[in-house]
Amino acid sequence: MNEIKGIGVSEGIGFGKSLIYVKEEIILEKGKSKDQILQLNKYNEALKTTEKELKHLISHTNETMSQDESAIFQAHLMILDDPEIKENIEKEIANNEYALNAIHKIYSSYIDMFSQMDNDYMNERALDLKDIMTKLIYAVNGKKTIDLSKICKDTIIISEDLLPSEIAKLNKKYIKGIVTEKGGKTSHTAIMARTLEIPALVINNISKLVKDNTDLIIDGNKGVLISNPSNKQVLYYKNTKTKELEFKTKILTLKNERSKTKDNKYIHIASNIGTEKDLKHALEVGAEGIGLFRTEFLFMDRKKAPSEEEQFEVYKKILSSFPNHKVVIRTLDIGGDKKIPYMDFPNELNPFLGFRAIRYCLENDDVLRTQLRALIRASYFGNLSIMFPMISMIEEIRKVKEIYNEEKEKLQKKSEKISNKIEIGMMIEVPSAAIMANDFAKEVDFFSIGTNDLTQYVTASDRMNPKLINIYTPLQPAVINLIANVIKAGKNNDIWVGMCGEAGANSLLLPLWISMGIDELSMSSSSILKARFTMKQIDSSKLKKWKEKVLLSKTLDQVKDSLKVHSYEN
Amino acid sequence: MNEIKGIGVSEGIGFGKSLIYVKEEIILEKGKSKDQILQLNKYNEALKTTEKELKHLISHTNETMSQDESAIFQAHLMILDDPEIKENIEKEIANNEYALNAIHKIYSSYIDMFSQMDNDYMNERALDLKDIMTKLIYAVNGKKTIDLSKICKDTIIISEDLLPSEIAKLNKKYIKGIVTEKGGKTSHTAIMARTLEIPALVINNISKLVKDNTDLIIDGNKGVLISNPSNKQVLYYKNTKTKELEFKTKILTLKNERSKTKDNKYIHIASNIGTEKDLKHALEVGAEGIGLFRTEFLFMDRKKAPSEEEQFEVYKKILSSFPNHKVVIRTLDIGGDKKIPYMDFPNELNPFLGFRAIRYCLENDDVLRTQLRALIRASYFGNLSIMFPMISMIEEIRKVKEIYNEEKEKLQKKSEKISNKIEIGMMIEVPSAAIMANDFAKEVDFFSIGTNDLTQYVTASDRMNPKLINIYTPLQPAVINLIANVIKAGKNNDIWVGMCGEAGANSLLLPLWISMGIDELSMSSSSILKARFTMKQIDSSKLKKWKEKVLLSKTLDQVKDSLKVHSYEN
Repeated sequence: MNEIKGIGVSEGIGFGKSLIYVKEEIILEKGKSKDQILQLNKYNEALKTTEKELKHLISHTNETMSQDESAIFQAHLMILDDPEIKENIEKEIANNEYALNAIHKIYSSYIDMFSQMDNDYMNERALDLKDIMTKLIYAVNGKKTIDLSKICKDTIIISEDLLPSEIAKLNKKYIKGIVTEKGGKTSHTAIMARTLEIPALVINNISKLVKDNTDLIIDGNKGVLISNPSNKQVLYYKNTKTKELEFKTKILTLKNERSKTKDNKYIHIASNIGTEKDLKHALEVGAEGIGLFRTEFLFMDRKKAPSEEEQFEVYKKILSSFPNHKVVIRTLDIGGDKKIPYMDFPNELNPFLGFRAIRYCLENDDVLRTQLRALIRASYFGNLSIMFPMISMIEEIRKVKEIYNEEKEKLQKKSEKISNKIEIGMMIEVPSAAIMANDFAKEVDFFSIGTNDLTQYVTASDRMNPKLINIYTPLQPAVINLIANVIKAGKNNDIWVGMCGEAGANSLLLPLWISMGIDELSMSSSSILKARFTMKQIDSSKLKKWKEKVLLSKTLDQVKDSLKVHSYEN
Repeated sequence: MNEIKGIGVSEGIGFGKSLIYVKEEIILEKGKSKDQILQLNKYNEALKTTEKELKHLISHTNETMSQDESAIFQAHLMILDDPEIKENIEKEIANNEYALNAIHKIYSSYIDMFSQMDNDYMNERALDLKDIMTKLIYAVNGKKTIDLSKICKDTIIISEDLLPSEIAKLNKKYIKGIVTEKGGKTSHTAIMARTLEIPALVINNISKLVKDNTDLIIDGNKGVLISNPSNKQVLYYKNTKTKELEFKTKILTLKNERSKTKDNKYIHIASNIGTEKDLKHALEVGAEGIGLFRTEFLFMDRKKAPSEEEQFEVYKKILSSFPNHKVVIRTLDIGGDKKIPYMDFPNELNPFLGFRAIRYCLENDDVLRTQLRALIRASYFGNLSIMFPMISMIEEIRKVKEIYNEEKEKLQKKSEKISNKIEIGMMIEVPSAAIMANDFAKEVDFFSIGTNDLTQYVTASDRMNPKLINIYTPLQPAVINLIANVIKAGKNNDIWVGMCGEAGANSLLLPLWISMGIDELSMSSSSILKARFTMKQIDSSKLKKWKEKVLLSKTLDQVKDSLKVHSYEN
């Protein structure tokens, strides 16, 4: 087999020759410097050069990509200018270190600290620091960082990692794919690759598995890299790529349509968002509401929690953007892989099985109360549904409802304008909640199934762990059966059931969720039009027997085979 | 409330005054030494003094405890004599470091390395290194380590941690309890406390919560510390303690009885073991077979995996010890919190959701094949049941059976003597296996429910995480219902179902498992007599309605209340 499996972090198919991109090693100076002034000047010159380079990158990305990408380099500028880092480097130079060694020493200490944290977000910030350090050191040496912009044949880059500034320079015309050993879906590299629409994968040890200048096909959709493809494989992927392009154009016409099945059953397709930029995208594709607003992004990359007022403004804006649709706002879901420096999180052996989300908020209920007040006040401006994450016990949902009612009463006493239709719901992502769904359904107005975490816990496999990609999949018979149980419990208790995990957008699974009676699907905005297209082809009245068969599948292969019968893959 | 919750790591109840035990800080020498020879002599003298002290501890523990405890200090002697550590310290001294600083620097580097590993076992080895370092440094300073042996009133020691050599010196007559901030059930401190029968707890930040010389009651059974107890509390605990002692004497008579209910239903109570010493204990209490032999201990604390022959001898010995009972041997369950240095484990963000047990063994099947050959050959000497851990998919159990059959055929061709009654079974500990138990039951001869991991995954809460003790409990309605489903699936498919997690020994839950029709309970040998006693009081024919009621409970309180109806707590 010439297929190497990995994790797809940016979709698309690409063809090109491999380029094993090994970075020049930094060679430190030996001994101590004898001229502190000279070294200090060198450092200051390097600061200026790097500042210029970053400003150039900012205007370049502003043109070629967008403000979001240029913001990455704005952040780099801020780090470059950080007084603590600068002071530490100057101290080292005053202690007779060479400028190069001083930069290396101080930056490395921060990089080590961030990389060792059990936290993807912080690990990825280490890459940003490395990017700046490399620039500074090259500047001291009078060199520029290696110029990837000069590649002028179809290339798939293979590298341990790729720094944001490196990826920013890539010429989309020639760079057909990126494969790195480090990173993940939330790394800046992945985010920028998606914006540039360059397919990207993360594969363990890839630089040892592929030789330089080998013919490659990268498939970011399936997370596969093919080396020395056969003619048949090339043909297959060329066709797939053409079809994909045609399909993309075709579904653009669905923007203003409502989501319904062939037999005219309306099922809302809403959007998962995390930022205001995402909101814009959701509106562009005609999302039927917001199925998941991840409020944790409001709390990140800052020094203290946002105030009630700040939160109110954001919630109000989102709610007013959807006068005719539900907006589901999830309360703070931190912990796990998302830790916030100014909050007091324990160091945990297994953060995904740790003190996260509602567990944190119930112990620190001031945070929760502030957020609930902002939400209740914002409810007046739209159709608000409040959703609580990581509920695993009846006791927890009862407790949060109690807190919610207390805050609501206080606001009512103050004669605040409050909607009288606020819904209270919960994520179904912990197996205990899914198993006891019939009891939980009596406590809330709606469920939203978080397929990512649910799959992770049901199969006991970390969704970020590249060694477990054969186990971690929502196609697992146990996951599918459990979801059927949740939807049934919702129906039996007359509450609506949505789904806000990635499996909702999976076209192989979409007909199955519809056959089970799902009421709403929420997904990233870029998946909505395709899902709407798929839905149009599904006759929901004819799926019952098929559904029963899928539920009886015992293995992944059986699940896949049964699903294919009603597959609407384009 | 004057009750502080923690994790009980050694059972029993104790009364005493708190002693906040803060260790003397090590003060390093400033600057560089000028006499390398003097410093080297100091180090060598310290080595000799420490060696003497350790040898004294070895003979002392041999008298007061057992060979297992003295083996801890044998290991310390080996570390003290480690050529790499010694060479590194001597190098530092040759570089003009003071002996004290050199010892501190080198030992600290190892301690840091071990403490930072995401691995309880290694973290606890760091405590051993710290113990030796402290001794060496005190010896250099001409002092002895603080002498806890001189305490001569009823005392409960409160400390950040307690080193093995410190605990070895405790006078059981006066030390009524130990509360540490660090450690866990598998730390040497806990192991030694259990041997000395001193109650012990682990509680976060305890030295900040309790003042010196406060009246305390420690309850190692429930994991609770009571400060300034009321007269009522003192009376209650005094009574409880007396009753416990009486009860312990009473149940000793059950050693040679078979385990059966009041209505004469036999349900085997077998033993969980990990070492040959455990085997002895199992035989002493009249265990009805081995329900779980944890083979991973054969692989630990050594430099390479045990050979087929070595394994064969161990398995043979255990199997021959139980001519009339089943012996369930579990294949290598490593990864998670048990990583083995000579095996190639990835660094994982969430090791409990990681590449462990059967996942590792299927990718490294040479390890599995060697173990299976040793097992199949040993089968001739008893009643062998082979059990596979962490099975989450039908594909996995089919694959291991295929490997098993291949190895068996190869041995048959060589005319090896093999039992024709070997059973093949699996742990039910991943929720996906519990949910799809009816399908898995068609693939195996038996199930054994691992309640610890199952609870952990079903509730998405790390069982080692002290912040989650209110969530992580087998009393969770979802866990109980899932277990009922597993036992029912076993009955429907005519296979036997055992339980080898801690919940099996829980006297509140024992009647419930019996009402569900469990066929075997396996527990630590020290729990067997009590469980046998409880079982004698249960009329299994009268539990049906009650069981249904328990299964309908929605909250932990409801579960507890329903369970109490049939509680046989002594």
